[in-house]
Amino acid sequence: MIGLPVNYGLLVFPTFQALDAFGTMDILNLLSLNFPMNLSVIARTLEPVSTQSNDPSLNPLKSNFGESVVPTHTFANAPPLDVLIIPGGYGLQADDLGPLYDFVRRTYPSLKYLMTICNGSWVAARAGVLDGRRATSNKQGWAITKEVGPKVNWVPHARWVVDGNIWTSSGVTAGIDSALAYVQEVYGEEHAKRIANEMEYERHEDPSWDPFAGVYNLPKENE
Amino acid sequence: MIGLPVNYGLLVFPTFQALDAFGTMDILNLLSLNFPMNLSVIARTLEPVSTQSNDPSLNPLKSNFGESVVPTHTFANAPPLDVLIIPGGYGLQADDLGPLYDFVRRTYPSLKYLMTICNGSWVAARAGVLDGRRATSNKQGWAITKEVGPKVNWVPHARWVVDGNIWTSSGVTAGIDSALAYVQEVYGEEHAKRIANEMEYERHEDPSWDPFAGVYNLPKENE
Repeated sequence: MIGLPVNYGLLVFPTFQALDAFGTMDILNLLSLNFPMNLSVIARTLEPVSTQSNDPSLNPLKSNFGESVVPTHTFANAPPLDVLIIPGGYGLQADDLGPLYDFVRRTYPSLKYLMTICNGSWVAARAGVLDGRRATSNKQGWAITKEVGPKVNWVPHARWVVDGNIWTSSGVTAGIDSALAYVQEVYGEEHAKRIANEMEYERHEDPSWDPFAGVYNLPKENE
Repeated sequence: MIGLPVNYGLLVFPTFQALDAFGTMDILNLLSLNFPMNLSVIARTLEPVSTQSNDPSLNPLKSNFGESVVPTHTFANAPPLDVLIIPGGYGLQADDLGPLYDFVRRTYPSLKYLMTICNGSWVAARAGVLDGRRATSNKQGWAITKEVGPKVNWVPHARWVVDGNIWTSSGVTAGIDSALAYVQEVYGEEHAKRIANEMEYERHEDPSWDPFAGVYNLPKENE
């Protein structure tokens, strides 16, 4: 087991998408019962971070509905990481996320792996670490994705894409398939199968499976 | 929209299963952008509640790996609820959960709906609200499930089961299918479809679909 990743970090920001984060985290939580692993939950400050949107255009009925997670570290004191996980969410449409992009930009060079879920790919793109790479993102927000990462080779039809040490997944639940594929690649097939069975999850094991590219009328290839 | 559920509660306890909670919550988070909804996150105290297990038999390598969520209410001051959601998790093997069962026992009579995910069904069973009902639970822990609820008509082959106003789902990701079926039943098919597409989730719409009953060698019917 020499060389396996040990130190994981989960980035969170206001109005992150709950299942983007917790699909992957549930898999890694279960994995951590069989491998020595540490998790840092990293945000701008140590204040709890909510999934909730208070933007009236997103939450017009003023629902008071969200869950808050507790960061363990800030961008300023996060420990050295082997793997960084970036969920997506409506919150990535905010315009004050410079420190988030800076953190990813300066953290990426020492990572073994970077994983994004859904439009978490926007953070990687804005940090510049996807330039010249193949990557994917959620399918509903594809037009914005193209604007956010003009130098990225975006793959429209993909459940997930691996390019070098960067794993990018399509929307929300695609992160579950991507994370299970990551476990299979890095820790072995038996662990991916065991965890999928424990989660009672019917995996999509083909990274090109993507009916949602069709649902959102995406082109066959990057244009 | 008269009579639709508005006030939701999510029960959390130490070492709850992240995706049991956040599969359902992600769906409801998205629904709350189209319907006026409130969420209370309810626990024994207001201290953050972690998914992590510190039980050496479960976490033998002493991984420091988990996520903490922030309760908004305690069992003592939770507001009136229309819907209560109970996730499962290894933490339900603890023997100090009397206050959790008491809360469910006294809250159930005024609910419109009770939803359990995975072995969250154990809480409902121990609170006595499943006696004489059809219900399901995760498939890996079936032997314990039978012991926990001797008066429950447990359905071994089921992705989820509805009996009256109680929705019980099988393990972890089955809660996603169950919650989408609940949205379809209560709020309408268009919302269930829209949310599944936004989550890029290929639903199982047949509640009897359950390959995992076979994986764990469960009998065809309750024995």
